[in-house]
Amino acid sequence: MSLVRVAVIGIGNMGAAHARTLVAGEVPGAELVAVCDVRQEMESWVSSNLPASVTYWQDAEQMMSSGTIDAVIIATPHYDHPEKAIQAFRDGLHVMIEKPAGVYTKQVRKMNEAAAASGKVFSMMYNQRTNPLYIKLRDLIASGELGEIRRTNWIITNWYRSQSYYDSGGWRATWAGEGGGVLINQDPHQLDLWQWTIGMMPVRMRAFCSFGKYRNIEVEDDVTAYVEYENGATGVFVTTTGEAPGTNRFEVNGDRGKIVIEDGQLTFWRLREPEPEFNQRFTGGFGQPECWKCEVPISGVETGHPGLIRNWIDAILNGTPLIAPGEEGIHGLTLSNAMLLSTWTDNWVDLPIDEDLFYEHLQQRIASSNTKKDKAGSSSQPADLSQTFK
Amino acid sequence: MSLVRVAVIGIGNMGAAHARTLVAGEVPGAELVAVCDVRQEMESWVSSNLPASVTYWQDAEQMMSSGTIDAVIIATPHYDHPEKAIQAFRDGLHVMIEKPAGVYTKQVRKMNEAAAASGKVFSMMYNQRTNPLYIKLRDLIASGELGEIRRTNWIITNWYRSQSYYDSGGWRATWAGEGGGVLINQDPHQLDLWQWTIGMMPVRMRAFCSFGKYRNIEVEDDVTAYVEYENGATGVFVTTTGEAPGTNRFEVNGDRGKIVIEDGQLTFWRLREPEPEFNQRFTGGFGQPECWKCEVPISGVETGHPGLIRNWIDAILNGTPLIAPGEEGIHGLTLSNAMLLSTWTDNWVDLPIDEDLFYEHLQQRIASSNTKKDKAGSSSQPADLSQTFK
Repeated sequence: MSLVRVAVIGIGNMGAAHARTLVAGEVPGAELVAVCDVRQEMESWVSSNLPASVTYWQDAEQMMSSGTIDAVIIATPHYDHPEKAIQAFRDGLHVMIEKPAGVYTKQVRKMNEAAAASGKVFSMMYNQRTNPLYIKLRDLIASGELGEIRRTNWIITNWYRSQSYYDSGGWRATWAGEGGGVLINQDPHQLDLWQWTIGMMPVRMRAFCSFGKYRNIEVEDDVTAYVEYENGATGVFVTTTGEAPGTNRFEVNGDRGKIVIEDGQLTFWRLREPEPEFNQRFTGGFGQPECWKCEVPISGVETGHPGLIRNWIDAILNGTPLIAPGEEGIHGLTLSNAMLLSTWTDNWVDLPIDEDLFYEHLQQRIASSNTKKDKAGSSSQPADLSQTFK
Repeated sequence: MSLVRVAVIGIGNMGAAHARTLVAGEVPGAELVAVCDVRQEMESWVSSNLPASVTYWQDAEQMMSSGTIDAVIIATPHYDHPEKAIQAFRDGLHVMIEKPAGVYTKQVRKMNEAAAASGKVFSMMYNQRTNPLYIKLRDLIASGELGEIRRTNWIITNWYRSQSYYDSGGWRATWAGEGGGVLINQDPHQLDLWQWTIGMMPVRMRAFCSFGKYRNIEVEDDVTAYVEYENGATGVFVTTTGEAPGTNRFEVNGDRGKIVIEDGQLTFWRLREPEPEFNQRFTGGFGQPECWKCEVPISGVETGHPGLIRNWIDAILNGTPLIAPGEEGIHGLTLSNAMLLSTWTDNWVDLPIDEDLFYEHLQQRIASSNTKKDKAGSSSQPADLSQTFK
């Protein structure tokens, strides 16, 4: 194969952006041949916004089994990600899915099993993994420069969303439509980076979610989570859509100092010697290890969504390693599911979580929901989201 | 009275510093006439470091009832603060006590009752209340500039202490000697400021303490606490003595933006209009209130311990309002007690706490302690602490 025939499923805000990226020729080796959206009115959007060579399909299953495509980008509402991906793997297609991997890990685990069985190239749209700041943080940790991790602390509260945002789509911020709030919609990148940069998942968690605290919505819009890792490290994750201007500050402490990413900058406070060694030799009572505030060069460009799509196509054509293997989508989702489950059970949650218990609780929320909203997006005009990614 | 005759009880690190402050004439209207320490060997320290006019007493009770003093500064080990203060009030003395107010709130409540009954001037050594940064923060909140409080977040992890620090005094970091670790020794100022600046105490808390995590000690040296306030605001407090270089960053979010104090600077991100008003009128989907990053002038000088002592003497002589009324010491201690109690019971704690339950738990820790340390400090040479206050 020298040219991958790509289809996009779901022409919402993200799907439309990905279609445009492909049409603009930003992905060598890939050609957009089809798009699919259940909303028939999107056919006119396709004909007026995409080349005539791009076929519109209303039925994803028909399109995927048509033999006219090699690979799909799935950008449907969250619940459909695993279902569509499983169908695609069955049809022998390579798959890239938008975040989140799904709404509940039970479903995502099945998707991962289908991916493994298919042998196809499976990637997640974790475009923030191309951000040089987080790449550098991961490098400094993986290479041992920060030493053993002791604490993580992410305050990610600059996801401000007004009531008008929530009112703009009937499926938004409902248990049936999105399956959650800030954790499932706004935070998937941070939840992924939180574990990807440090290379550890927590072993248990105690979390505190508020539902509809700042907006007339039924899902969580304010969260504080406390986690413990196997090596004894602890962590905190604070998020909300209700604050302005909010904060995006990620701090990681280790035996060799601390690293903070904030305001688009990474700062490394580096201890001259590992703290445990200082502690062992020091006899002076008051005193602490010599610390250097280091300017660490950050190189490279954040290639974002197009970069992730290029990497996926490269992996299909040339076996290039994936930046964001699809199977890793379950990690961030596990964190998000655990935060809800801990709140619902008002108790500790061990990780990996009890997937059936989470699923049961979620079904209860869907069943008792008073929000009558349609599952698909209500707007037939994709919005420009270029300023909304963090 | 035109000259207050002051005594200092407990010539440890802090008591010695206060004695020197008085001898140096830094407190107009006050004269150091006596010092007291149970360790008889301190008599030689007194004679070689203080003027001959200062009398050494070994027995505090005798000194306080001697009729030769008007006021006492109590700088004994923590457990003794309330007991000594109650004796002082009984003897008709004005009282200033070092932080913490005590070790458990049950005892501190009795001290507060004794203070009220005495009518004497009672102050706490909350010298950080003279820090212009926190004064300004309190001003911005009390005056409504920040609007309704929504979130507080204090990361105070720059209290690094080596094992040699803990080994320097037998009473240090023991349940019987200090009654706690980082919360009772290092954090009292931050625990006080956390509630003093915002003017609110939490109504419930869930906290996670680790005991002897980084050092060979039996008390807590790593803490994360989550709190909820009556108005729906939430908060996080993270502290440890095990990290270097650590962080001291206090963030408060409100309807009108956010304020961060870090690196000795206060920054106010001010919304042009209150967030709820923006939310009400905004119909654009994606968008948020206009925000100004403001440079707020910070004026005044941190007068520290001498400033607090001067204020106490002024209150005695002239009725000047106290910066830190002694009765307010119970607030920070309640927060600290609640953090331990939540950990010990592995559950939520409502505030005000169940004082008897806390006392019982504390007695269990003392009874089951394996650490055989003497209650009084083991060093007869007070250390220079001038670089250790935050």
